[in-house]
Amino acid sequence: MIKAGIIGSTGYAGAEIVRILLNHPEVEIVWYGSRSYVDEQYASIYRNMFKLVEAKCFDDNLEVLCKEADVIFTATPQGYLAGVLTEEILANCKVIDLSADYRIKDVATYEKWYKIEHKSPQFIEEAVYGLCEINRDKITDKTRLIANPGCYTTCSILTAYPLVKAGLIDPASIIIDAKSGTSGAGRGAKLPNLFCEVNENIKAYGVTNHRHTPEIEEQLGYACGQQLTLSFTPHLVPMNRGILATEYATLVQKEDGTYPTAKEVMKAYHDCYDKEYFVRVLGYGDCPETKWVEGSNFVDVSCIIDERTHRVIMMGALDNIVKGAAGQAVQNMNILFGLEENMGLKLVPSFP
Amino acid sequence: MIKAGIIGSTGYAGAEIVRILLNHPEVEIVWYGSRSYVDEQYASIYRNMFKLVEAKCFDDNLEVLCKEADVIFTATPQGYLAGVLTEEILANCKVIDLSADYRIKDVATYEKWYKIEHKSPQFIEEAVYGLCEINRDKITDKTRLIANPGCYTTCSILTAYPLVKAGLIDPASIIIDAKSGTSGAGRGAKLPNLFCEVNENIKAYGVTNHRHTPEIEEQLGYACGQQLTLSFTPHLVPMNRGILATEYATLVQKEDGTYPTAKEVMKAYHDCYDKEYFVRVLGYGDCPETKWVEGSNFVDVSCIIDERTHRVIMMGALDNIVKGAAGQAVQNMNILFGLEENMGLKLVPSFP
Amino acid sequence: MIKAGIIGSTGYAGAEIVRILLNHPEVEIVWYGSRSYVDEQYASIYRNMFKLVEAKCFDDNLEVLCKEADVIFTATPQGYLAGVLTEEILANCKVIDLSADYRIKDVATYEKWYKIEHKSPQFIEEAVYGLCEINRDKITDKTRLIANPGCYTTCSILTAYPLVKAGLIDPASIIIDAKSGTSGAGRGAKLPNLFCEVNENIKAYGVTNHRHTPEIEEQLGYACGQQLTLSFTPHLVPMNRGILATEYATLVQKEDGTYPTAKEVMKAYHDCYDKEYFVRVLGYGDCPETKWVEGSNFVDVSCIIDERTHRVIMMGALDNIVKGAAGQAVQNMNILFGLEENMGLKLVPSFP
Amino acid sequence: MIKAGIIGSTGYAGAEIVRILLNHPEVEIVWYGSRSYVDEQYASIYRNMFKLVEAKCFDDNLEVLCKEADVIFTATPQGYLAGVLTEEILANCKVIDLSADYRIKDVATYEKWYKIEHKSPQFIEEAVYGLCEINRDKITDKTRLIANPGCYTTCSILTAYPLVKAGLIDPASIIIDAKSGTSGAGRGAKLPNLFCEVNENIKAYGVTNHRHTPEIEEQLGYACGQQLTLSFTPHLVPMNRGILATEYATLVQKEDGTYPTAKEVMKAYHDCYDKEYFVRVLGYGDCPETKWVEGSNFVDVSCIIDERTHRVIMMGALDNIVKGAAGQAVQNMNILFGLEENMGLKLVPSFP
Repeated sequence: MIKAGIIGSTGYAGAEIVRILLNHPEVEIVWYGSRSYVDEQYASIYRNMFKLVEAKCFDDNLEVLCKEADVIFTATPQGYLAGVLTEEILANCKVIDLSADYRIKDVATYEKWYKIEHKSPQFIEEAVYGLCEINRDKITDKTRLIANPGCYTTCSILTAYPLVKAGLIDPASIIIDAKSGTSGAGRGAKLPNLFCEVNENIKAYGVTNHRHTPEIEEQLGYACGQQLTLSFTPHLVPMNRGILATEYATLVQKEDGTYPTAKEVMKAYHDCYDKEYFVRVLGYGDCPETKWVEGSNFVDVSCIIDERTHRVIMMGALDNIVKGAAGQAVQNMNILFGLEENMGLKLVPSFP
Repeated sequence: MIKAGIIGSTGYAGAEIVRILLNHPEVEIVWYGSRSYVDEQYASIYRNMFKLVEAKCFDDNLEVLCKEADVIFTATPQGYLAGVLTEEILANCKVIDLSADYRIKDVATYEKWYKIEHKSPQFIEEAVYGLCEINRDKITDKTRLIANPGCYTTCSILTAYPLVKAGLIDPASIIIDAKSGTSGAGRGAKLPNLFCEVNENIKAYGVTNHRHTPEIEEQLGYACGQQLTLSFTPHLVPMNRGILATEYATLVQKEDGTYPTAKEVMKAYHDCYDKEYFVRVLGYGDCPETKWVEGSNFVDVSCIIDERTHRVIMMGALDNIVKGAAGQAVQNMNILFGLEENMGLKLVPSFP
Repeated sequence: MIKAGIIGSTGYAGAEIVRILLNHPEVEIVWYGSRSYVDEQYASIYRNMFKLVEAKCFDDNLEVLCKEADVIFTATPQGYLAGVLTEEILANCKVIDLSADYRIKDVATYEKWYKIEHKSPQFIEEAVYGLCEINRDKITDKTRLIANPGCYTTCSILTAYPLVKAGLIDPASIIIDAKSGTSGAGRGAKLPNLFCEVNENIKAYGVTNHRHTPEIEEQLGYACGQQLTLSFTPHLVPMNRGILATEYATLVQKEDGTYPTAKEVMKAYHDCYDKEYFVRVLGYGDCPETKWVEGSNFVDVSCIIDERTHRVIMMGALDNIVKGAAGQAVQNMNILFGLEENMGLKLVPSFP
Repeated sequence: MIKAGIIGSTGYAGAEIVRILLNHPEVEIVWYGSRSYVDEQYASIYRNMFKLVEAKCFDDNLEVLCKEADVIFTATPQGYLAGVLTEEILANCKVIDLSADYRIKDVATYEKWYKIEHKSPQFIEEAVYGLCEINRDKITDKTRLIANPGCYTTCSILTAYPLVKAGLIDPASIIIDAKSGTSGAGRGAKLPNLFCEVNENIKAYGVTNHRHTPEIEEQLGYACGQQLTLSFTPHLVPMNRGILATEYATLVQKEDGTYPTAKEVMKAYHDCYDKEYFVRVLGYGDCPETKWVEGSNFVDVSCIIDERTHRVIMMGALDNIVKGAAGQAVQNMNILFGLEENMGLKLVPSFP
């Protein structure tokens, strides 16, 4: 049995790791870390876990934990892990970080968008960006540190990746309009996240400056082999879970003056994803809905061409706490430890 | 592998049986019955099942199905199964009926509340009322027909059962005020179930005449050894899943003039449920919330005494589609086939 | 023009007073009090008021305000007004208090349920309990202080009042199961009120000890001319606005052994409310819905007799921020100043 | 008093006209038309109107109605009015049509997008497109027919109009990503609009072929003096009311190589809207939220420049049933009859 510790286990993402691992046949949770609730029963904070988790919450002592665990999940605020990570920790156990600390290779870019100093840039290079479907091969038995992708980024990248990679769209034309459920805002007691403020409301936020932007740009840049700049606009939707990304790009005109066809764009999707368990390519023109992936690790993607404007509208949906956070973290763990990639993750989406 | 057929597989309860059985290690679904969608891909109707279910929908041919399946789940409107059930079907396979057709032993009571003629009263006697925690022993290897309890009834009965059985409350004083998510209304395209009609709204309905009333009365009557009449008022709540029952009853005064204490009422709960996997007895005075059981087969129960009025307020919460329908049906199947009762049902409640 | 000041104008109830008074032909708001947002633009906190309110927020200086205003609304936490109210303030202007400070005549009862010391019990006697439909006549030109009723209490009392007053139900048998939208919890940034905690969830809270209980008991006690004790259980519903009260009571048997009929109970409702603009008596057996009164000052009430148990189920619905708080406060103001009682309050419920 | 008839008064838009006109000082409703509910009490269908509307529903007899009414509102399905409108009707009274029948000047475009034959193209020319803020001057005392704009179109056009008109953005680059509450889908009992299908879900629909597209293109084309083609993608959001449009366009580079500044784009907004009561220009970079305009006739607009991509993100929010339908229809009526444009429309947005 793999021994797992979870730092930040009382946030929504941390709690979802717990939910998933409780049914994972090869993992045992040995550490429920939560600075805010030290010594309290975990199940008194997440009462869904009543009778399922008997443990109390521990403090965030990575130096002790790394000797008791085979893998540590850090579902912590930006900057936390960078501030405490050491060579010794990595020498003792694997770390899967759900924060942004090691996602962006260029430390200056990180510091500019996150407006905090990076305290341990020496580990950035070795960290593998854990977008499993794309970087699976980079995760080897020597990998010690996984930078688990963000929720918006996972959805945004996987939705556009096939067409970017196939060169069918102009990278400079990409516009991502994303919509997220409210769990993405975390469990902090803040006025804008109150029920009465979110319910019956929709708004954009972080326009032009949301911190997932450079992460999306970096990864899609790798896909097309050139730096790119795109527009990313997140919105807050009155629902608990789910991200929908609606992405716009201009099709690249061919030498004969024609544009890519429905068949060609769908071929690009199928080439990329037909072997993937967790990415479901819907029929051409079918619109993904967040409800159809809720509670699961699936991403549903599809697209439709607008003949009038020579644009393609790409759409992707996932559960922000599962494939957008905890599920992908466990998927990364499975890869790291040589398990079946979908072990413990065959969660059937729940409807309604 | 147990071969299962599902009649009414495209209703919400039927679809939930599918969701659960897909992860059940000992069951294979051989028949997705749906009169409305014959020959259509199941996954085109429930797109959460895309890539998980390849089958098409079949018609409702129980006579054929009973030879191909070991167990048939009927998640069908009231009166359907009573109209088609035959000795031959029961001779060939087990039937677990999610409708009310065989729940009530007195056919006149059934016909009065449901306002339909019962077409096969000859099977009522042998049917076992499948409220597992209470009737488990009545399910034997000779049992052919299970009447799976209603959603409101499962919640209402399990919440009051310990105190009724222990004689701590006056049966004539019981009042049940129940609140349900909207999935209980089914997937029919009816105006009162439209989003804009349900959202931001709460109302009572079926006041004094809801059809789950006699079912609750019959079962609680068995518990106290006498017929009882109670008040049951259901309400529609703007959420997808969940039932909360708030139940009021007067405590029985003892000979010395005192009333049962917190310790005594809690002992009654623990005596009944401490060995049960699916019933979680919360601490005295803790209020169950539907969110904490969502997606799982758990029922959370507790109570609190009102010293001023000598009443006890009992509360119970469950997921109406799981423990209130599909989950309990699978639990019954597990018992029927001698499997671990919670096999395939260790669903961890999802939060948020 | 009546000059009005609002203390606590940035809470939900305070903001609703603003919304209503902006369209009131005889009132001008001269003071937007808000300790938390002193000197900030009111419309920057409530952006619905952009271009409608130009004023900034003031501190809570009642001694200054009472000389500038004809009426002060205090939409403040329990204990605030009792701590600052003086004879001088009351000598200068009318005060309509939306807190509980002056609602309960017995100071010991107040202190027991609210667990705070009452700092100015000398004003309790003169305060008029502003449940307009019942106490209208007690509001005279000498009235200086109105204790505006609570949201649950307004709904609970008006729903049961006619049958209590007519002696048709046994006061000792009353059970009130109430359901409220989340705005009732206020605008404080607390974890249990976060969107993800409230959405898709229902729970009871404050069972046996909610502070509106003694207020309901006192007023219904006046109606039947004797002290009474009842059970009151509030629930939190995932919607912004609205309270639904479902109330149970045993009908009083007549000397001839019969029980009150539908006609008799409805007559009691019509006798009480037919002249009232804001109480709408629905048809016998019609179930009130919160959505049908949303945004308005209406209370919809009705009832249905359960012949089997000789109980009557009474139901009432209102908008907790309007008739349950701000609307009733303005109604009280209209009475106090001799205006048409529904002036500025002919708000048509908004649907959907 | 202006006598108004409403055809389609039991749809959501029709019912909102009723809600507004009940408080309009110069209008009396003389005809509640509803083919589905002829002879039924209007208030039995919309119970919010209980005691406010005593009338029964009438059939859709425009030939009779036009002699009894000064103005007819038609809140009817596409094609209805075109099929019944006659010269005689227009000779007798004003008609304000909330359907799309007379919005598009080119009948071929109408027939292509709506896939129905236009039965009375002879009236298209004289119909005034009633986007009040832009076409106010075209409404004269001779105007007989107003084509009231669509909900998405009103929001989409008003959001982009200032920058299109000022030539600050490239018309060919416009992408509109719009999000709507569910009331926009109407009150028809259709499966996709059930609570459980919409709640906790977001999806795009009508991608590349939504029928509001040509209407937006035509009007923005007038603004820039050339035909344009744009991408429009609507989404369904789990809320009752509200539309948010997030619009992307590339800024036009100036001759000196620079791009328009924040100051310049905001000036364009203020130039267009500073005299408008119903369009509120928020501060630069402030994001409109649907909740802040709910229940009112306001449109909140703003924008923000993305320096990295030389795009501007424009945002607008309105209540789809008010400014997007009924409210604008009444605004048009006010203009037509020479009343104050905001008479009966000073609805303060309701929060929460």
